[in-house]
Amino acid sequence: MFLEKVRSEGLAHISYLVGSNGQAAVIDPRRDVDEYLDIARKKGARIMLVLETHRNEDLVSGALELANATGAAIYHGGQLDFDYGNSLEDGQEFSIGDLRITAMHTPGHTDESHCFLLADGRGPFLLFTGDTLFSGEVGRTDLLGPERLRDMTEKLYDSLHDKVLPLGEGTVIMPAHGPGSHCGHAIGERSPTTIGLEVRDNKALSLPRMDFIMAKMADRMERPPYFKRMEALNLHGPIILGAMPSPPALGPGQVKGAQEDGALVLDLREPQCYANGHIPRSLNVWLDRLPAYGGYAIPYGRPLLLVLDRQEDVDTAVRYLVRMGYEDICGYLRDGMNAWAMSGNVLSSFPAYSVHDVHAAQLSGKGMMLIDLRDTPELEAGLMPGSSLIHLGNIIERSSELPADKELVLFCRSGTRGAIAASMLRNSGMKNVAIMLGGFTAWSKNGYPVEKFRNV
Amino acid sequence: MFLEKVRSEGLAHISYLVGSNGQAAVIDPRRDVDEYLDIARKKGARIMLVLETHRNEDLVSGALELANATGAAIYHGGQLDFDYGNSLEDGQEFSIGDLRITAMHTPGHTDESHCFLLADGRGPFLLFTGDTLFSGEVGRTDLLGPERLRDMTEKLYDSLHDKVLPLGEGTVIMPAHGPGSHCGHAIGERSPTTIGLEVRDNKALSLPRMDFIMAKMADRMERPPYFKRMEALNLHGPIILGAMPSPPALGPGQVKGAQEDGALVLDLREPQCYANGHIPRSLNVWLDRLPAYGGYAIPYGRPLLLVLDRQEDVDTAVRYLVRMGYEDICGYLRDGMNAWAMSGNVLSSFPAYSVHDVHAAQLSGKGMMLIDLRDTPELEAGLMPGSSLIHLGNIIERSSELPADKELVLFCRSGTRGAIAASMLRNSGMKNVAIMLGGFTAWSKNGYPVEKFRNV
Amino acid sequence: MFLEKVRSEGLAHISYLVGSNGQAAVIDPRRDVDEYLDIARKKGARIMLVLETHRNEDLVSGALELANATGAAIYHGGQLDFDYGNSLEDGQEFSIGDLRITAMHTPGHTDESHCFLLADGRGPFLLFTGDTLFSGEVGRTDLLGPERLRDMTEKLYDSLHDKVLPLGEGTVIMPAHGPGSHCGHAIGERSPTTIGLEVRDNKALSLPRMDFIMAKMADRMERPPYFKRMEALNLHGPIILGAMPSPPALGPGQVKGAQEDGALVLDLREPQCYANGHIPRSLNVWLDRLPAYGGYAIPYGRPLLLVLDRQEDVDTAVRYLVRMGYEDICGYLRDGMNAWAMSGNVLSSFPAYSVHDVHAAQLSGKGMMLIDLRDTPELEAGLMPGSSLIHLGNIIERSSELPADKELVLFCRSGTRGAIAASMLRNSGMKNVAIMLGGFTAWSKNGYPVEKFRNV
Amino acid sequence: MFLEKVRSEGLAHISYLVGSNGQAAVIDPRRDVDEYLDIARKKGARIMLVLETHRNEDLVSGALELANATGAAIYHGGQLDFDYGNSLEDGQEFSIGDLRITAMHTPGHTDESHCFLLADGRGPFLLFTGDTLFSGEVGRTDLLGPERLRDMTEKLYDSLHDKVLPLGEGTVIMPAHGPGSHCGHAIGERSPTTIGLEVRDNKALSLPRMDFIMAKMADRMERPPYFKRMEALNLHGPIILGAMPSPPALGPGQVKGAQEDGALVLDLREPQCYANGHIPRSLNVWLDRLPAYGGYAIPYGRPLLLVLDRQEDVDTAVRYLVRMGYEDICGYLRDGMNAWAMSGNVLSSFPAYSVHDVHAAQLSGKGMMLIDLRDTPELEAGLMPGSSLIHLGNIIERSSELPADKELVLFCRSGTRGAIAASMLRNSGMKNVAIMLGGFTAWSKNGYPVEKFRNV
Repeated sequence: MFLEKVRSEGLAHISYLVGSNGQAAVIDPRRDVDEYLDIARKKGARIMLVLETHRNEDLVSGALELANATGAAIYHGGQLDFDYGNSLEDGQEFSIGDLRITAMHTPGHTDESHCFLLADGRGPFLLFTGDTLFSGEVGRTDLLGPERLRDMTEKLYDSLHDKVLPLGEGTVIMPAHGPGSHCGHAIGERSPTTIGLEVRDNKALSLPRMDFIMAKMADRMERPPYFKRMEALNLHGPIILGAMPSPPALGPGQVKGAQEDGALVLDLREPQCYANGHIPRSLNVWLDRLPAYGGYAIPYGRPLLLVLDRQEDVDTAVRYLVRMGYEDICGYLRDGMNAWAMSGNVLSSFPAYSVHDVHAAQLSGKGMMLIDLRDTPELEAGLMPGSSLIHLGNIIERSSELPADKELVLFCRSGTRGAIAASMLRNSGMKNVAIMLGGFTAWSKNGYPVEKFRNV
Repeated sequence: MFLEKVRSEGLAHISYLVGSNGQAAVIDPRRDVDEYLDIARKKGARIMLVLETHRNEDLVSGALELANATGAAIYHGGQLDFDYGNSLEDGQEFSIGDLRITAMHTPGHTDESHCFLLADGRGPFLLFTGDTLFSGEVGRTDLLGPERLRDMTEKLYDSLHDKVLPLGEGTVIMPAHGPGSHCGHAIGERSPTTIGLEVRDNKALSLPRMDFIMAKMADRMERPPYFKRMEALNLHGPIILGAMPSPPALGPGQVKGAQEDGALVLDLREPQCYANGHIPRSLNVWLDRLPAYGGYAIPYGRPLLLVLDRQEDVDTAVRYLVRMGYEDICGYLRDGMNAWAMSGNVLSSFPAYSVHDVHAAQLSGKGMMLIDLRDTPELEAGLMPGSSLIHLGNIIERSSELPADKELVLFCRSGTRGAIAASMLRNSGMKNVAIMLGGFTAWSKNGYPVEKFRNV
Repeated sequence: MFLEKVRSEGLAHISYLVGSNGQAAVIDPRRDVDEYLDIARKKGARIMLVLETHRNEDLVSGALELANATGAAIYHGGQLDFDYGNSLEDGQEFSIGDLRITAMHTPGHTDESHCFLLADGRGPFLLFTGDTLFSGEVGRTDLLGPERLRDMTEKLYDSLHDKVLPLGEGTVIMPAHGPGSHCGHAIGERSPTTIGLEVRDNKALSLPRMDFIMAKMADRMERPPYFKRMEALNLHGPIILGAMPSPPALGPGQVKGAQEDGALVLDLREPQCYANGHIPRSLNVWLDRLPAYGGYAIPYGRPLLLVLDRQEDVDTAVRYLVRMGYEDICGYLRDGMNAWAMSGNVLSSFPAYSVHDVHAAQLSGKGMMLIDLRDTPELEAGLMPGSSLIHLGNIIERSSELPADKELVLFCRSGTRGAIAASMLRNSGMKNVAIMLGGFTAWSKNGYPVEKFRNV
Repeated sequence: MFLEKVRSEGLAHISYLVGSNGQAAVIDPRRDVDEYLDIARKKGARIMLVLETHRNEDLVSGALELANATGAAIYHGGQLDFDYGNSLEDGQEFSIGDLRITAMHTPGHTDESHCFLLADGRGPFLLFTGDTLFSGEVGRTDLLGPERLRDMTEKLYDSLHDKVLPLGEGTVIMPAHGPGSHCGHAIGERSPTTIGLEVRDNKALSLPRMDFIMAKMADRMERPPYFKRMEALNLHGPIILGAMPSPPALGPGQVKGAQEDGALVLDLREPQCYANGHIPRSLNVWLDRLPAYGGYAIPYGRPLLLVLDRQEDVDTAVRYLVRMGYEDICGYLRDGMNAWAMSGNVLSSFPAYSVHDVHAAQLSGKGMMLIDLRDTPELEAGLMPGSSLIHLGNIIERSSELPADKELVLFCRSGTRGAIAASMLRNSGMKNVAIMLGGFTAWSKNGYPVEKFRNV
């Protein structure tokens, strides 16, 4: 047998390829499926089966893409009315070479959530848990909306305690996400983990039923706006790409022409670089955080034009975007920002302050408005005195609340979202914006004053 | 700029990827196009253009496959009525980044043959010659049939002397084939070569017009039977695969089942191994010579089931087959012939004699019939006394001429075709066959008697 | 964190690279260390530490090779007097980024055996068990000789029950071997496994102390003769290679010249191919089984010259050999056996019978001597009537017992060892040998008579 | 045969691996030799021979490294007294499989310069020209100093006209450098090229003897200060690395500690990013231009600590540095500058002006001193009015000439050298420095005033 993990960095999504005797199954494939095909080819196995633990919300599924390339059969929970693939029955069994895979209906994260129990000749030993159980965390239950929250939370508790935990402490757990995902605050990076380890270390599993329900109902998690589109795409089936888009290199003149024709320039460099000089009307999302925050900022329906430090990263950027449903990538800036600067084209910029600058400005009474873009759970670390809370996801709709006569200093935990919001606001017409490098982390590490957050 | 060769081993086919400033063109792509896409991705270039020097006869074109993956435009000679792509004008120019490519109509190999002249800012410097001019050889002119032979030969002479050679001795030549191709006897492996070097070393270029025509008209070349199919596929457009087929591993029982359902077992091991033990009713073509000889032996329209020494070679075998239009590959024998032997299934075999055995048998008057499968040009090396000449391509249709009461000992230059023919004859019902290992080469190297061949 | 397995096929050896925050440790490295260096480079980590669970017996350790390339510190059990590296203390702790690794002295397999417990911020979760505990099996205790057998077995029981199992059912287990190793009969391929799963499924763990001791003392396992050399090399430190040997391609004439100068031709093709035609005085070990059986047949101290089906496999063969301490590889036969046959050189051969041939010969009273080369545990599957038992490891020293006037038909479970022994016997002067394809497995699958084995 | 180019980006150095029949030679290897070993392994060839066209000045030779890994013999011109390898005779022949290589002594670039003529069975066809002849350019003759300049130039003319050009127009040329090298202004990217094409397009080849000598003697080329060290290393033999250094990831605290212990922080980000925020006392050289300009700025003998945008680029940076003789790389900043900012550590910065800012400042009479760092040939494009010329290589020794009361605005052609010089000056104690983004190119493209350069 072989069991290979394929991680999608940034989304912290984990998919699995499991095989035996020339056959393989993929659990929760991502959209750029070449890696699965390569592994299967090296292992001498044909991908026969695509199993989806649930309709993914944070990335476009590669199920149809894989089926198109290999003829594999797709299975997902019948509780949702998918436009493609087959419906799972609770307890349904599949054979992959000498292995057996049994579907277990485990509603809670969503109605159609399933876990898949892997068995060899000696018995079951490993559970693909999808978004039901992670290392250090359990699935979120809020995605079907507040009116279903309690119901889903109860179902999750029951799925965990009646179906998953009884499999025994020694059972290995393979979840669909690692740390850094939108799908759970406390997901740890321990891999592999087991039911025994989770019972020992995962706080959510040790709570009595009612405490569990209360805790989950009180929990507040981000729901990036692009989730909606992912849900629709994965329900109805995304278009099949066949091959990854390969955007052409464009010179500065072509970039400006494309902008005039409606393309959005997406600058994927670090916030500090972007702030200091960028193509006017571009949007900034740092490449490393593109999977996490791109869905807050990048509109669908416009061709994208990429700006990167290094051409070697174009393929990474394209994959990140395609996984989130952005397929229309019309080019990238040839030779990067240096080429733009040498062409003599105008560079926009805005201030990138250090925390020391901001502290000094506060002391001197300079008229800044500090805007904290963080999520509620991040606020537990404390607040900057005098700052206003506006979540990244609301910055544009609440921009009318912002004063025109003050410099807006945007910050978050580290600085990435600050620059995203700054670029969004500037594109919407506000010019007097700035960012604070290192964000709240740098502020607090330097011992500058911090207030306690009181959630209401 | 960059210029990358992609070689298809066995067919000795060479395609080229040339690019500059984020754009690329592919000349004469093969059907498995992943390597072009990979190179383009690494170079940060988009493939904009597919140029075909002519309708290829020896492999399925990847033009449509590439166009499907990248949106590239396809161009080929308008003298043939292709069902897809665009028609070239003589002198038509294309830009790829800072490079210019000019199409030159050079009929002779076929009516629609073109060469492509590559120029940078300093002028033209390199000619993609397709099948018009090779290292050490010129294109064959017999493919349109005997009634067009003289006409095509004259055209080739004129194309070479009026269009190609005037480009100047320093011009670099990049042809569509290296040594070992069906497209020319004397193709050398010198790469790169130039017009100056060819004028110095290529005999065909030094012949006066009439001598050239006489020599080409007297020339006899193999035309593998699968060429016809390639020509039709490339004219009308092959089906688009999207991804390489990934055949599943099958156990001995499944192999027998697939045979019953009509699959043909294709044993790709060396002749010596095959002779000594193989799956009954399998066909043998050694993997290394599959591109060269597969088209003589493997029928179209039957699912193929592969037998290989090493599972690592499945991908190579699949590519070789797909390039020749065999897409229906239904599996491969898991764990190779050892698994078959261990399963207790019957192994067929036939004798594989050394040249010493055959010599001794001849001396002792044993009743063997020696069948020489070689091509006419190979016969210049001499003949085995007492042997009969039957070209590999005719062995089945002429099998009724073969005696039933004698052992047929099949041989060729090296031994590969001997085993192909032996497996074909045995499948057609003749059982008393054998091969001679090392073929005529081993025979003559050992100093055994050789007769002179007199062509009539 | 990251945790990568590096498997050495054939030896079924598994080493691990574990890292966090730019630092990495390797557990039980093999000698060709390029894969560790590549992974570390991709992960942006430096290898700081090499941990050896014990002095490996079945392959040359890569500890010194890695230390030479990276400056890593080597640690192994102080109970053995190594000429290099540092001694472990029971309970000694190491930090690798955010991970902690604790050495646990677990004698039993050998005196200096250690397990390594991996912990993250939430606690310990994974045990590298070396040869102490496998999936489905426990370590062998016979390697220090019969006089230490009982003592070591007791120690192993205590290490397992007092140290390993108390870590808890949920603890993940990562052993040094998978199925197919000489280091345990019943090693399964389940990966990952856990203490809980082993307690449930591993028979050795459920035995009471005395039953465990009796069972282990009654157990008979192969000990390939090359183990001795591995033990000495790993104690004193093998020579550092720096880079993998890259043997040159040699033509048939050069091969014969090298043979005259003392080189041993090692033919790595399948038994069936080898039997049918090979270079005189060559030795046959099928490439796939080279790691398992090479150490029985290949003498140390002679330059090796390789014969392979495909040149692509040279690198694999070199790695297999280097891992077993054969560094002096002076070349490989260019273009394989086909080139040898074409050169007109003599091919040796011997019969490769099917089980049907052998059965018919037995019925007809033909004077064959059937020699069964299998290990004692394999004999549980039954015996061929009339066969003699001579273990592969004893075939040369017991060759004087063999009759000169009968054909010796050598067989094993599958056929590989039959051909090894046949080639060894023929090199030692016995000519009348043959093999039985498919071995005992094919015999019994065809329903031919089988006798029960009675161990004495 | 096979012929593979291995390019070292940035240095525009080209080395070659040529092979036939299981043997290979490398011409002018670089120090990180893994790519040669990989190609040879894939081709089934052993590297037998290392040929050096001359003692390289711009990178550390990999000759000893390759000889160490493969046992290959090293040959270079005997006119220089190397401490290792063998001396070439003019006309000396080598065999590599079926190929012949003939050494031709072609002094001019240096005394010991040789070209290597490659021949197959049909005759010579390709010349490895080293630094004697490039596409579009000839070798520089000034490296042995002004007193030898005329002598060397005459020798180069004679080598070209008496030895190289007589080989015939059709001969293919493979030089040791492409465009962007320090080894020639006008080197073009045409590849391959030929003697015929060079005679047509290379101006230096069309000059009569005296004009050639005058032109070369008037030519002024950069000679980066690290050349001296390369020359000494290549004469005496660099230390053998065995494997590429793999620097560990260090946190901000460790970086500061290493700085205190004497390490130099080398920031490899783009000038714009560096200017806007960097680790105090770091040196900036943009990664893409590190091979070209690192040798001007980075002192030998100090451990280096790298700052990069992306961890994926560490390996590239290490290779670039090792090729220039910087082996002591003690780490890289984990998670890049974002981690530094989040840690709350101080960021240094200086202004990065656009050309529009600078133009406006000039108009407003702001007290700036504009310092142009370009080479003499680059000045042909024109000068900025009011700017002072100080070559990058002299900036530190001439820093005492610089005014203390004015802001120094450093610029070059594109901006890279501006930031290098700014970081050097700041480290030497001058604080009032700035750069101009896009350099002279952006200035002139915007139509701002440009003066003519008059060389004196």
